[in-house]
Amino acid sequence: MLSFECDYNVGAHPALLARLAETNLIPAVGYGFDEFSDSAKAKIRAACADPAADVWFAVGGTQVNLLAISSMLRPFEGVVSAVTGHINGHEAGAIEYTGHKVLTLPHHDGKLRADELTAYLEGFFADKEGAPHMVQPGMVYITHPTEYGTLYTKKELAEIRAVCGRFSLPLYLDGARLGYALACPSSDVTLPDLAALTDAFTIGGTKCGALIGEALVFPRGKSPAAFFTQMKQRGAVLAKGRAVGVQFDALFTDGLYERIAAGAIEKAEKLRAAFLRLGYRLHIDAPTNQIFVLVSNERMEALAQSVRFTWWEKADEGHSVIRFVTSWATTDEIADALISLLESHGQAV
Amino acid sequence: MLSFECDYNVGAHPALLARLAETNLIPAVGYGFDEFSDSAKAKIRAACADPAADVWFAVGGTQVNLLAISSMLRPFEGVVSAVTGHINGHEAGAIEYTGHKVLTLPHHDGKLRADELTAYLEGFFADKEGAPHMVQPGMVYITHPTEYGTLYTKKELAEIRAVCGRFSLPLYLDGARLGYALACPSSDVTLPDLAALTDAFTIGGTKCGALIGEALVFPRGKSPAAFFTQMKQRGAVLAKGRAVGVQFDALFTDGLYERIAAGAIEKAEKLRAAFLRLGYRLHIDAPTNQIFVLVSNERMEALAQSVRFTWWEKADEGHSVIRFVTSWATTDEIADALISLLESHGQAV
Amino acid sequence: MLSFECDYNVGAHPALLARLAETNLIPAVGYGFDEFSDSAKAKIRAACADPAADVWFAVGGTQVNLLAISSMLRPFEGVVSAVTGHINGHEAGAIEYTGHKVLTLPHHDGKLRADELTAYLEGFFADKEGAPHMVQPGMVYITHPTEYGTLYTKKELAEIRAVCGRFSLPLYLDGARLGYALACPSSDVTLPDLAALTDAFTIGGTKCGALIGEALVFPRGKSPAAFFTQMKQRGAVLAKGRAVGVQFDALFTDGLYERIAAGAIEKAEKLRAAFLRLGYRLHIDAPTNQIFVLVSNERMEALAQSVRFTWWEKADEGHSVIRFVTSWATTDEIADALISLLESHGQAV
Amino acid sequence: MLSFECDYNVGAHPALLARLAETNLIPAVGYGFDEFSDSAKAKIRAACADPAADVWFAVGGTQVNLLAISSMLRPFEGVVSAVTGHINGHEAGAIEYTGHKVLTLPHHDGKLRADELTAYLEGFFADKEGAPHMVQPGMVYITHPTEYGTLYTKKELAEIRAVCGRFSLPLYLDGARLGYALACPSSDVTLPDLAALTDAFTIGGTKCGALIGEALVFPRGKSPAAFFTQMKQRGAVLAKGRAVGVQFDALFTDGLYERIAAGAIEKAEKLRAAFLRLGYRLHIDAPTNQIFVLVSNERMEALAQSVRFTWWEKADEGHSVIRFVTSWATTDEIADALISLLESHGQAV
Repeated sequence: MLSFECDYNVGAHPALLARLAETNLIPAVGYGFDEFSDSAKAKIRAACADPAADVWFAVGGTQVNLLAISSMLRPFEGVVSAVTGHINGHEAGAIEYTGHKVLTLPHHDGKLRADELTAYLEGFFADKEGAPHMVQPGMVYITHPTEYGTLYTKKELAEIRAVCGRFSLPLYLDGARLGYALACPSSDVTLPDLAALTDAFTIGGTKCGALIGEALVFPRGKSPAAFFTQMKQRGAVLAKGRAVGVQFDALFTDGLYERIAAGAIEKAEKLRAAFLRLGYRLHIDAPTNQIFVLVSNERMEALAQSVRFTWWEKADEGHSVIRFVTSWATTDEIADALISLLESHGQAV
Repeated sequence: MLSFECDYNVGAHPALLARLAETNLIPAVGYGFDEFSDSAKAKIRAACADPAADVWFAVGGTQVNLLAISSMLRPFEGVVSAVTGHINGHEAGAIEYTGHKVLTLPHHDGKLRADELTAYLEGFFADKEGAPHMVQPGMVYITHPTEYGTLYTKKELAEIRAVCGRFSLPLYLDGARLGYALACPSSDVTLPDLAALTDAFTIGGTKCGALIGEALVFPRGKSPAAFFTQMKQRGAVLAKGRAVGVQFDALFTDGLYERIAAGAIEKAEKLRAAFLRLGYRLHIDAPTNQIFVLVSNERMEALAQSVRFTWWEKADEGHSVIRFVTSWATTDEIADALISLLESHGQAV
Repeated sequence: MLSFECDYNVGAHPALLARLAETNLIPAVGYGFDEFSDSAKAKIRAACADPAADVWFAVGGTQVNLLAISSMLRPFEGVVSAVTGHINGHEAGAIEYTGHKVLTLPHHDGKLRADELTAYLEGFFADKEGAPHMVQPGMVYITHPTEYGTLYTKKELAEIRAVCGRFSLPLYLDGARLGYALACPSSDVTLPDLAALTDAFTIGGTKCGALIGEALVFPRGKSPAAFFTQMKQRGAVLAKGRAVGVQFDALFTDGLYERIAAGAIEKAEKLRAAFLRLGYRLHIDAPTNQIFVLVSNERMEALAQSVRFTWWEKADEGHSVIRFVTSWATTDEIADALISLLESHGQAV
Repeated sequence: MLSFECDYNVGAHPALLARLAETNLIPAVGYGFDEFSDSAKAKIRAACADPAADVWFAVGGTQVNLLAISSMLRPFEGVVSAVTGHINGHEAGAIEYTGHKVLTLPHHDGKLRADELTAYLEGFFADKEGAPHMVQPGMVYITHPTEYGTLYTKKELAEIRAVCGRFSLPLYLDGARLGYALACPSSDVTLPDLAALTDAFTIGGTKCGALIGEALVFPRGKSPAAFFTQMKQRGAVLAKGRAVGVQFDALFTDGLYERIAAGAIEKAEKLRAAFLRLGYRLHIDAPTNQIFVLVSNERMEALAQSVRFTWWEKADEGHSVIRFVTSWATTDEIADALISLLESHGQAV
């Protein structure tokens, strides 16, 4: 059975496991203040071209989102997100559990649009009488790549940044799959761009080569007050902080992070071409490691005999959208096996 | 420099790293529903002699405490703890952050006493007029080993259990260092006892051989409602749940968990004997892997040149209590090196 | 200047003030356990034809909503509401502050539709894989009258009740303006119907004759556990609970509550007829004490010189929706004065 | 049956009811922005000799405490209180429900001591390694009068203020019974002193003449950000804010607030003298309107036939501490009736 259902179905990139083994018996201080974490942080700062950046490590995506958002908002504020934002639908109400509302705006293939953000914020702050009875927008949340695998251009990010600046709202970018964005040939957004354009962003490890771990970057050293204590308070401090530090140290050595992501993008491109060649329609035109394909329900069931993918949504009575995901662990052999399988099923119609 | 400051200063037991490497590229489903986690859970159930037990994995001690407590309490309830309980002083208000008060009782070398618990609960529930204005005790929290390295006897646990039963309060046992309790020759408490006597307990991995990870057991299958969703909501679900599952699977294979803890206890016994032989006074008579020693401040400073330990508390103007901790990773060589060092400093006076 | 901007711009119905004065110096026990509150509760139970109902008093609408919702939901659950529901947009995130998400469905003139509710719930609970990562719907919230002044029919309520029953979800009805619903000649919904069809509902006092106060009814005696303590915990217990109890006792003596609301409905009908006669278009056809009128911006500004109303929303570049509200305090003289004013401005076009 | 069990067992001072009646039908804007509330605020500012002070109105003591504390603390901070502080034991966990820990220090007849506060804060902030794992003290809470009816001197307040200043912690004073403190001849603390020495304090209405209502003062205009929205979010905004505003306007007209409290102090003095004359021992020597008397259990039961008082605590097997409370509503006739009753029971011994 082939596995294309997600980018977290195997363990860690072997280089990370090797580094964990090498450093295993070296005593180190706890709680993330160890030498391995320090080294990883220094490398991330360098990659971001932001020597003053604060870097923290957490174990998972929901955790790092709730940490960042609950520590950046004041009690009466909410976080603005596209309605499709991961925090809005797929994190079990983690943000609300910290006492904050997710304020939703429409999405465009998963993206927020600067003009719609402006219109919302202008409307809110102009309503002097009504606004005090409502949740005040306190920050803006975007995902890159989005839940649909799409990417913001540098220009789009700069526009959103400008809106945030105008209304003094911090901008937070959820990069759970950031590696696949950075590795995308068509993308003009770099880590230094993110450090320059956001107030906080994450560099996802779990889906991009790590066993576990996400890095949270506060550019220009602007961590929320007592951020370590806030992490501890949400259960996010590891006694053995090295467990994540060692992995990020390896990921940011010799460009491993982007390098292994580039492999996934290459395989995704190859698969996308194969789908199109075989007459499938892509539901969304996205350049990263997720491929959303429109199929007849019969074809979907036939494919499911030999490959695992994700059912995404119903298109119409007879058709569905299904998702195939590549990762750093998708070899050419695996990708070719899927292409062969697809060919064996013939044209999509 | 020797390292005796804690039991989480190195990585994982090599058997666990080996198992992570072996299983690394086997595709598995996410979120803790993988085959490795399933296998680990089955082994834990067997070790607890509770075939119906629910087992969940989390990454750290504060996280698992806040998960268990916030999901077992109703909104108007608090958790009863010894004033020295880890949740009361050293978890940055993680319990209060979930909306619940920690209700404190006196400690006796770190332990709650059944008679004092009874007196408190009788007093509370007898006060028909005042009680509704106060936080209702909703569960009882104990640590085993305690923060002072002491242990409950089976009889003491049974007494506390009986009090809990009388007032219909669940009993939760924080076993962050449980391995060292189970491995203690003088202790009569076993995993099946814990499964029989508590409503929830943890089996600490981080301090007992794992890189990260704690197991949370709900005996007799009594997980709080929608516990997976509650974990997700607190940021405690790992996309790669296997990361912890594989480790616990190894820890519970062929008795590794208790076996490696036994080594630590043996080294602690040896050190304790050496301290006594050299005229040191032990601050607390505790049988597990933590040794609390009363020293003059001069001696403390002298030792600090060659060995890392933890400053615990001030005893009087000229003396301090310091803590030495052994772990599964403390070899005979390391223990002997400390003994030689102590000998080189002569009698404690 | 005429005042039609809301139904809470004057004090209390004189009968309530008189009763407060009469009882003022009679000593009574605190916290809502006084004889006046007891009497009020008995009268409300009788009016609801539910002798077992639990009745509690709170001071305001947001407070009573957050009390009911946060005490009826489990930690991992959210409350389903029309997107226009008061709790969603106009209560400053009070529900989220208690840790719960508001799950929104489309509205139809402010109302939820049973078929859309069914489709949402069926979809949620059918998604065995995705649902545990999402906020679980835990109760249904509706307003009656709605934010648009519209009313559910008894049949519509019964349909929603049936959906709730099928999915074991409690139904909570926010009756901040309930008096005006009960007094509506075209409505077939009575207090006993609400007691039979909901799991909790409020009887608004503040907008229907009281100085302050809302009654919260749990039919059939089904209060959430330790509800008094939960009220105290949210700051909602008054030392002098009598302050609200006395008022509800007066409101539920000799049918005062519905009687004074009927006056408001009568005046609203008269005004509605006048608007239509003068060529105004009603934005929503609602039978209660709120009148939503579509006007040109010029006319709006002209009227604003002599009467206070509420700006509701922009209709198009040249037109707005404005709201006029009657109350128990709107006399025939006041209503006639508005009609004269309208007549003096001539036809609406 | 005489009633001395509390100071909130009757309604409002007649002057307040009269003012509510007079203003009843005057239309006013909602949410506390009405002319009556404005007038009350101006008078309170004048009484505090702080023209820039922000004043807000809430309905009850627990509510105003949770509002002030939750809006003044950052997420990782707790509030320092004497262990006997009202927020610690008698408010059902309202502070913890907002996510914050109450950090307790010993009490001395209900009071915090500046030296003990200093020692705690010095110890906390000196512990660079441990402190980040603990709840950070974020403000100091005191009650005046305390739960034991005792008062801080101006010097004691200034000392606590100095400690707070040294550690940059705001000082919040809970004045639920403030009137009785201000009216105490032996007290040297005035409203302008409170405005000068605290960062926030309350002026209790409920126990000092109002039907409901507490004023919350932020001296020098230092309200927490978006305080109105934070009030709304906790359910503390009244649509008819006038209900409290009118009462405080009356209380602060012609010195009514202190004047009626002075009557209560006078009666308390008279009763205290009678108790002492009859051989009773006072448990605490407190100068305000609460009298704590040590009695044999037989005498307690005998008195309970004719007068309501509060059982406070057990003194020993045969004795109890009971509390008698006077209020603005305690007339000379009522006080004399209690004295006659006491005399009829003879000497205390």
